[in-house]
Amino acid sequence: MNQVLDYAKRLMAAPSVTPATGAVFDELEAMLSPLGFEVVRFVAGEEPDGPVENLFAIRNGPEGSRHFAFAGHLDVVPPGGGWTSEAFVPEIRPSPGGDLLYGRGAVDMKGAIACMVDAVANVPVEAGTVSFIITGDEEGPAIHGTRALIDWMHEQGHAPDLCLVGEPTSVNRLGDMMKIGRRGSVNIWLEVEGVQGHVAYPHLADNPIPKLVAMLAEMDALVLDEGTDWFQASNLEITEIEVGNAAHNVIPATAKARLSIRFNDLHSGASLSEKVAAIASKHGGTTLPIVSGEPFLTPPGAFSQTIAAAVKAETGIDPEPSTTGGTSDARFLRSVCPVIEFGLVNATMHKRDEAVAIADLDALSRIYAAIARAALTG
Amino acid sequence: MNQVLDYAKRLMAAPSVTPATGAVFDELEAMLSPLGFEVVRFVAGEEPDGPVENLFAIRNGPEGSRHFAFAGHLDVVPPGGGWTSEAFVPEIRPSPGGDLLYGRGAVDMKGAIACMVDAVANVPVEAGTVSFIITGDEEGPAIHGTRALIDWMHEQGHAPDLCLVGEPTSVNRLGDMMKIGRRGSVNIWLEVEGVQGHVAYPHLADNPIPKLVAMLAEMDALVLDEGTDWFQASNLEITEIEVGNAAHNVIPATAKARLSIRFNDLHSGASLSEKVAAIASKHGGTTLPIVSGEPFLTPPGAFSQTIAAAVKAETGIDPEPSTTGGTSDARFLRSVCPVIEFGLVNATMHKRDEAVAIADLDALSRIYAAIARAALTG
Repeated sequence: MNQVLDYAKRLMAAPSVTPATGAVFDELEAMLSPLGFEVVRFVAGEEPDGPVENLFAIRNGPEGSRHFAFAGHLDVVPPGGGWTSEAFVPEIRPSPGGDLLYGRGAVDMKGAIACMVDAVANVPVEAGTVSFIITGDEEGPAIHGTRALIDWMHEQGHAPDLCLVGEPTSVNRLGDMMKIGRRGSVNIWLEVEGVQGHVAYPHLADNPIPKLVAMLAEMDALVLDEGTDWFQASNLEITEIEVGNAAHNVIPATAKARLSIRFNDLHSGASLSEKVAAIASKHGGTTLPIVSGEPFLTPPGAFSQTIAAAVKAETGIDPEPSTTGGTSDARFLRSVCPVIEFGLVNATMHKRDEAVAIADLDALSRIYAAIARAALTG
Repeated sequence: MNQVLDYAKRLMAAPSVTPATGAVFDELEAMLSPLGFEVVRFVAGEEPDGPVENLFAIRNGPEGSRHFAFAGHLDVVPPGGGWTSEAFVPEIRPSPGGDLLYGRGAVDMKGAIACMVDAVANVPVEAGTVSFIITGDEEGPAIHGTRALIDWMHEQGHAPDLCLVGEPTSVNRLGDMMKIGRRGSVNIWLEVEGVQGHVAYPHLADNPIPKLVAMLAEMDALVLDEGTDWFQASNLEITEIEVGNAAHNVIPATAKARLSIRFNDLHSGASLSEKVAAIASKHGGTTLPIVSGEPFLTPPGAFSQTIAAAVKAETGIDPEPSTTGGTSDARFLRSVCPVIEFGLVNATMHKRDEAVAIADLDALSRIYAAIARAALTG
């Protein structure tokens, strides 16, 4: 039996659209317990942001040994329509490049969690302490997931030295990219109040739209930075404008808009919120910023070299250290210890017919084991 | 009995929310027939722009005499809520300035039509031909109203020399303003197509909003003109922006906006539509203009002097010749003959508790009679 494939199929066969609880965690616990892990599970939150199940598992090494953590999530995005096979019935189908395993979560990231579990069988207990930090809400609001796990770990005195998140970071081939950081993210709601009136009597009204247009033009023209050694340039997108005025001959009372800024470590959510608020204020508008993540960077060094070496040994590829793309739970785990993300090929993540090459599961299991052994050696 | 008050109450007691047909026209016909008018009525159009009833009434003067037309509408805007008395149950209530008649249509413009009917009793048949051009759709789309009446009159060979529209043009006191022209009006829909994508990967998307913002900023900065002797400056208002993107992390595929331009006789609907389309095109957008009226002017002269003299004799006020405000059916009647609008005080038009001073009805009846007599004398 192919053990890692069996693990992956068992996890994928348990439906776990975000937020996840129950069966999929039962499966993971049933895999980890026989491997010598002490498993703790707890459910946090309520509708609509929960309930969310979280799992922490630990296999202690010798007294004073280093502590390496695998982190990830068992929840998945909704399957949507148009699948060739059932999203939660894992199915192996041949392809020119080798057999593929289809199903929601194949790469994001039940497949990677299967590889982590399979890997620890090849990490001697004497090497050090290994743990799993697994949440049921990474794809949703992420309020009661990894953040709650981190709080709980802090209370219990669990302090990993290094953490690997199994997000699908590979782009074209397994091993071509790891994430050593992520940009920050802030959404900012803008609003301008005017005075409603008839278009034939504009002097009796105060149209908020020209003010909104002027502030948006100024915001869109902002050059936040030119990028850094490890980050691309910060980027501001206007994602919504809403007036909601159906009447052709009426000047509306209110105009609203929304921005989304992805930013590097030259900024913070607060600094950008202040910059945007100043422009809005100049044009008579107000802002409501919601920061969903601050940027973080685990600067290239020993940890990234450990990962690169393990990847190179297995695949022959030098993984590119990148900070591109969206956010992940690494934004929270950065507060615990240095964190890097590395995992499967992300081409089919969040899409119909999500699939992973079975050969990649085998290879990633070996890579994860090599990383854990090297990380524990220090 | 106060004849003009009786006429007004009878017309106001017949509900006639636009588009209007039936009872309110029966009332008007019953008033005009005894006064020697030949009345023709026809219904035009279908849902949703109709059916609309139209009425043409004529009392012929001696062969070769001049022809003076009163024009107006019997439809009213919906009453809305919050009335002190029933909107379609005319009610007289005392006020410090004299008794007021309350009800929808009191000033816009059943009250004025009552004055026209009352006035013709004081215009001798020998003075010339008098007609009534009355529609049931001025407040709505106005597709099957005065336009249809004009077509019919043209077919029948009815060609007034002068036309007075009874819109409520007075602002603070009866007689303080007449309308010698109206601005044109065009609404322009704008649309920019982009490519949808994730805000974390803007290079894979094409955000249409910055293009829309840039074109709107340029349009808003347009100085169309500085006004003319008889018109205020043309004015462009952005009345709507719509993106409709609920997802914070998505760059939308499309962005839309709408403009409303009120313009003087230095422009046409087509010239402004072209100007806006050129700006839109420069920024990658498209336009759909709908011209609802071209500007018109009946230059101050004999007709406006006739009206001013009649107003001054009755009220002591010199009416200001104005071109301000919205559109009216005068925009269509201008194709027939010189047209000027003069009527009651518009303070309560389109509002709850619409009301007219009974003294103003008496005065306006005398003014209309004096205008008709003078206009027929030529």
